[in-house]
Formats: sequence, structure tokens, C-alpha cells
Amino acid sequence: MMTSAQNKYDLDTPCLVLDLDVLDLNLQKMQAAARRAGKTLRPHAKTHKCSSLARKQIEAGACGVCAAKVSEAEALVKAGITGILITGPVATPKKITRLVDMLAATPSLITVVDHRDSIDLLDAALRQRGMSMDVLLDVDIGLHRTGVRAANALDLADYILSRPALRLRGVQAYAGQVQHISSYEARKAASHKHLQEAVPVFRELKGVVDTCAIFSSSGTGTFDIDLTVPEVTELQVGSYACMDTEYLAIGSAEDSTQFAPFGPALRLLTTVVSRNQIGYVTVDAGLKSLYRDGGVPQVIGSGHSGMVYDWFGDEYGKVTCPGNGELPSIGTVLELVVSHCDPTINLFDRYYLTKGTEVVGVWPIDLRGCSQ
Amino acid sequence: MMTSAQNKYDLDTPCLVLDLDVLDLNLQKMQAAARRAGKTLRPHAKTHKCSSLARKQIEAGACGVCAAKVSEAEALVKAGITGILITGPVATPKKITRLVDMLAATPSLITVVDHRDSIDLLDAALRQRGMSMDVLLDVDIGLHRTGVRAANALDLADYILSRPALRLRGVQAYAGQVQHISSYEARKAASHKHLQEAVPVFRELKGVVDTCAIFSSSGTGTFDIDLTVPEVTELQVGSYACMDTEYLAIGSAEDSTQFAPFGPALRLLTTVVSRNQIGYVTVDAGLKSLYRDGGVPQVIGSGHSGMVYDWFGDEYGKVTCPGNGELPSIGTVLELVVSHCDPTINLFDRYYLTKGTEVVGVWPIDLRGCSQ
Repeated sequence: MMTSAQNKYDLDTPCLVLDLDVLDLNLQKMQAAARRAGKTLRPHAKTHKCSSLARKQIEAGACGVCAAKVSEAEALVKAGITGILITGPVATPKKITRLVDMLAATPSLITVVDHRDSIDLLDAALRQRGMSMDVLLDVDIGLHRTGVRAANALDLADYILSRPALRLRGVQAYAGQVQHISSYEARKAASHKHLQEAVPVFRELKGVVDTCAIFSSSGTGTFDIDLTVPEVTELQVGSYACMDTEYLAIGSAEDSTQFAPFGPALRLLTTVVSRNQIGYVTVDAGLKSLYRDGGVPQVIGSGHSGMVYDWFGDEYGKVTCPGNGELPSIGTVLELVVSHCDPTINLFDRYYLTKGTEVVGVWPIDLRGCSQ
Repeated sequence: MMTSAQNKYDLDTPCLVLDLDVLDLNLQKMQAAARRAGKTLRPHAKTHKCSSLARKQIEAGACGVCAAKVSEAEALVKAGITGILITGPVATPKKITRLVDMLAATPSLITVVDHRDSIDLLDAALRQRGMSMDVLLDVDIGLHRTGVRAANALDLADYILSRPALRLRGVQAYAGQVQHISSYEARKAASHKHLQEAVPVFRELKGVVDTCAIFSSSGTGTFDIDLTVPEVTELQVGSYACMDTEYLAIGSAEDSTQFAPFGPALRLLTTVVSRNQIGYVTVDAGLKSLYRDGGVPQVIGSGHSGMVYDWFGDEYGKVTCPGNGELPSIGTVLELVVSHCDPTINLFDRYYLTKGTEVVGVWPIDLRGCSQ
């Protein structure tokens, strides 16, 4: 942690800073929206990769957090986080051993399943240890990435119910493909259409299986849309906490030109290191510190409006300055909203926490690199 | 390290493996080419991010290694590596303090400079500590990213010579923009043309400055081309050690259809985790473990030829299978040559070292995340 007051623009760069006031507002807004609709919030930790931020989400009212991979869940468990849902299929003997080891320490752990082969492996591993586990049936509602097709979902549910070590607790249905549709109305129509593919599956299961009570769904782009679906019981939204230009560019219910509900809590600081060209300078953040995905990062901050960032190789960025304005001098620190927060956060080991321009602490990005 | 013989296909995935036989051949070939031409090799560690690999390059005959950033150099120094050249300008008081601290422990350290402002800062910091330092003048030969324009290079050299704490040891001239030109002949013409912009600068300096003896240049794509330029004294090639599909796709002197000199020592292993679709499976490596840049990774390995990888979100890949062939089962491990090695390596904490299919060791990727 910091030993004395430090200004964020004095931090060495490139680095990630997290504006605590914006973050708190984002967390409160999402939690309040879920509460008003009578839904549970289980935010996705794959975005922020940080157990300290996960704890803050839980303190704000979340029932736990989601993890994309077993190794992410392991890091969360190590930090004492409970209520973890693993949102991707755990499919190999090695991973299932890691999962079952974790379950012994954290009985609240839930995982999704989407295929007989991995179900057999999991059931056998659990029985060998005399254990049982909560699972959700992952239903593919159009992303076609993981999950069983809705038409085959009840068959696979029957199979899960026949496995002695598995407790079917409900379904997961994630429409990743609609999250960034620009028009709010088009996004709303698409999300409702796709969610309806999983609704009959969940209704049927809920009617006959006592333990079946969870319908986990949604993303930042459709949170308010999906909250109106009666069957949905919990949201697994991720990006809303940190935010990025990709999400800020879509229209919201309140404003068709930008995504109004959440602010850019996450920013990247980068410094001008070379200034020998006409019309632009070279900064110290490139592919390795700003993941090249989801459009371009946006330069913010007073005096820097109109400046445009573009990647300039692995280590550098090119910041073009508007008109015939003076170029920023060497050593000038620029503040950027990143284009795609998840993979960019995964490039760093810590967030610097800020209140205004003051650095007030550090959170380790302790799930960084947990891709297994 | 491994406690008993382990097959690489039993490793948990996604993970990076490094084929030691291919790596050794790559290192030997580059070293032999430099030696034959009477040049020095100082390979770039920004690619492999690994002090163990740097040590292997030095054992093979390299005079040291290059680092892109101060924090990379710090990690190399910590591992006991000497002969480090920092290839990007160090431009802020904070970074210069880190640089000078490092220099106290490693007097062989060299850095490039490209602007009066950063030269002033460095000179002042050195004088305050009663120290001096070797520097290269970074000459911009068409990449227009860092470096002084050739037309202004002698003026800036004069300025360096006027600074009491700086010893001008030569020039750096890197034509990054020509490295991936597909045609060997076109690449050759372009590289020679651009290098000639720095040649008169170096000749002039060498004639009047006793200490001026280094002309550092080149990349993997032009190593054999640049070796024929008499003024060039050392190569700062990087990717040749690990290799990727982006470099393998360019033509070489020996073969116009592929880059023949070096083999893909680096591979990524990924596992089929979902198999509910027609024509493709879902694997466990996505944006966060295979950096999306430089084209698409290539699936290799017997029985898997014709399979095509594409990114499928942050955590997953889609592997399409040719024709009406059987899809690989859940748990099948696929081996890929990555599309752009530098940023992909930066996503991992270790290489598993292999001989054939056997895992024979681990090297930490100890420069991972060193973007400062």
C-alpha cells in the first residue's frame, strides 16, 4: 500500500488505475437494479481478475462471483471467496481433480456441465471421493460456443439426474453474441428471443426437480433487459464494474448514443516517451499493455481531448494530436479508457486505487494469467 | 522441475511448450550466421521474456541481450545477465532513476537516446551520482516510432557529445516496418534502402568519435540481408528463437513460400472442452492465452492437419475440422504454432521444455508483464 499521498499522474507507466468512486457507483447501480427486480447478482470475476474487487461486490450484496476457469476459482478460494460458479465446462481428468480438490474446501462451489463425457468424468471423480456437487446445465442459446442445444437439454438433464454424485441446481444460458449490439431496442429483442430458448427447459426442470432453482444469465449489455424475464434468477455480469470503450459505445435505455448506466472506473496511464515526429507522439503502452481488441482506447483528461491513440507495435502507442496543436512534451502522462477491459486487465499484476487524483491503495490482480 | 518423465500431452492446458531441439537449432543457426559475417549477436529478450533463454543465447555466443523496457532490464539484471542494451528511449525522471540504480550494479548497461529533453534528464541524473553511461543514438529509418530523423542525427550526436556523463558508443537503426514483407527480394531492397539512411551518420561519427563502434540493427525477417551491410556491427533479432506463423509465412532466400531458416520452437497446447456443434469443437484457449494478432495460429500435429483455429471470445477457441471428418473427442489436446509470439508469451508465467514428447523442465517467463 501507499505510504504517503501520491498523485496518480506520478505513477510509473504503463499502469492500470481504478477510480474508486466510479467503481462504487457501478457496483451500487448494478446491485440496486438486481435487488429491485428480485434477482440475485453473481458478477463475473473473469473481467476484473481480482479477489479484492470480488469481495467488494459481495459486500455490496452479491451472492458470490463467477469464474471462467478452474484456476480462477482456485485463486478466489485461496482468497477466501465463497459462492463461486464456474461458467465453463470442466472437461478433463486433470481439471476435474483440481475441481474436486477445491470442492472439499468450498462446498458452495457450483460448475456448469454440457456433455455426457465430462459429466461421466465428474460423477466418477466425485463418487470416488464420496462427495457430491451442485451443477448447472449449460444451455446454448445461440452463441454456439459451450452448452447443449436447447432441443437436447432435457435429455442431458435426465442424464445429470441419473448421476448419483451430481445435484442439478438449474441452468446457465448466456447470449454473449447480443451483448454489444449497438441499438438498445435491437439488443432487447435479440436477448429476449434467445433467452426464450432456455425458458421452457428451466420451467420443465423446475416443475419436476426440487433442487432446480437457478437460472443464471446475462451480461453487462443486457442486464436491464434480462432482469425483466421472470424465469431468470441471477445475473453473471462482468464488465460493468470496470467498463471499456466497447461497452460505452452501445446505446442504453436512457440514451441511444452511449451506455449510460456505468462509468469508466478503469483507466490506463501511459507516458509520452518520444517526440520527433510531426502531428503525433509515441507513448509507452502498446500491444503488451493495451490488448488490441474491441476498437481503440479513448484518450480522456483535460487538455487531451481530441487526441487519438493507436497501437504502434508491442511496446508503443501512437497518439495523434488534433489540428496544429502543440504536441505534449516528453514525460506527459495520458489517461485512456481501454477498448476491451477483460484481456487488458489480464496483462497487469495490480490496480492502483484512486480517489480523484490521489492514489489511496493497491489491489493485486491475483487471478491474472489464470487461463487454465 | 519435473519429478518424473511426463508426456507433454498430459500437461494441463492452455500452456506454452518449447521444443528444445528446435530452439537449439534456431539459436545455433543465427549465431553461426552472425559469426560467419563477423558480426555480434545481441538477441532481443522482449520476445521470449525469459532470463534462462537469454542465458542460453549468451552461452551460444551472444554478447548479451536487448530489452525493450527498463523493467525487463531489471529482471534480466536480477537473473545475473550482463551486456544489456535497452532499445527504447528512457524518458521520465522515475524511469531514469531506475536506470541509474541498475547501472550501478551493471556497468555494461547501454541505453538508446533520441531527444534532447531525455538526454538532459539522463545526463543530470548520472552526474548527480558521479556516474557515466554508454548510449546509442536511436536513428529513425522509416518506422517513425522512436529515434531521431537521420537528417537531425548528427546535431543530436553533437549534443550527446557535449554531455559530460554520456559516452556515445554508436547508433541503433531498426526498420521494423520491413520485417514482414512477404517477398524476400522486396524485403531485401527495402531493408537496404532504409539502413542506408543511417550508414552516413554512423560513418561520420565513427570517423571522429573514438568510442563509437556499435551499429545495432535488424530483426528476424532481415537478419541475413542486414548481415551483408558492412557498417552493421550487431543484430538485435528476437523472434527467431521461438518463431510464429507471422514469420513462418514470409519468403526466405532459400524458399519464396516460407521462412526456412528457423523452426517453430514455441507451441501452445489447448484442449477440447466442448463438443456439441456440427463441424467444430470448442477449445480452452482464447484471447487471454493466444494473443489475437498477426493472423491465426496454426494447428499442427499428426491427425490434426487441416483443422483451423479461430478465436471464440476471451477464454475459448473454435477449431473447425475439415470435410466430414470425425470431431476430436472432449479432452483431446491440440498443438498450435502461435500467430505472434511476443505478446502471446507475455500471457504466461512459464515454458514447459520438451524433448520430443517428453517434458524435461520448466523455465519461468520472468520478464512477463514487464511493460514499464
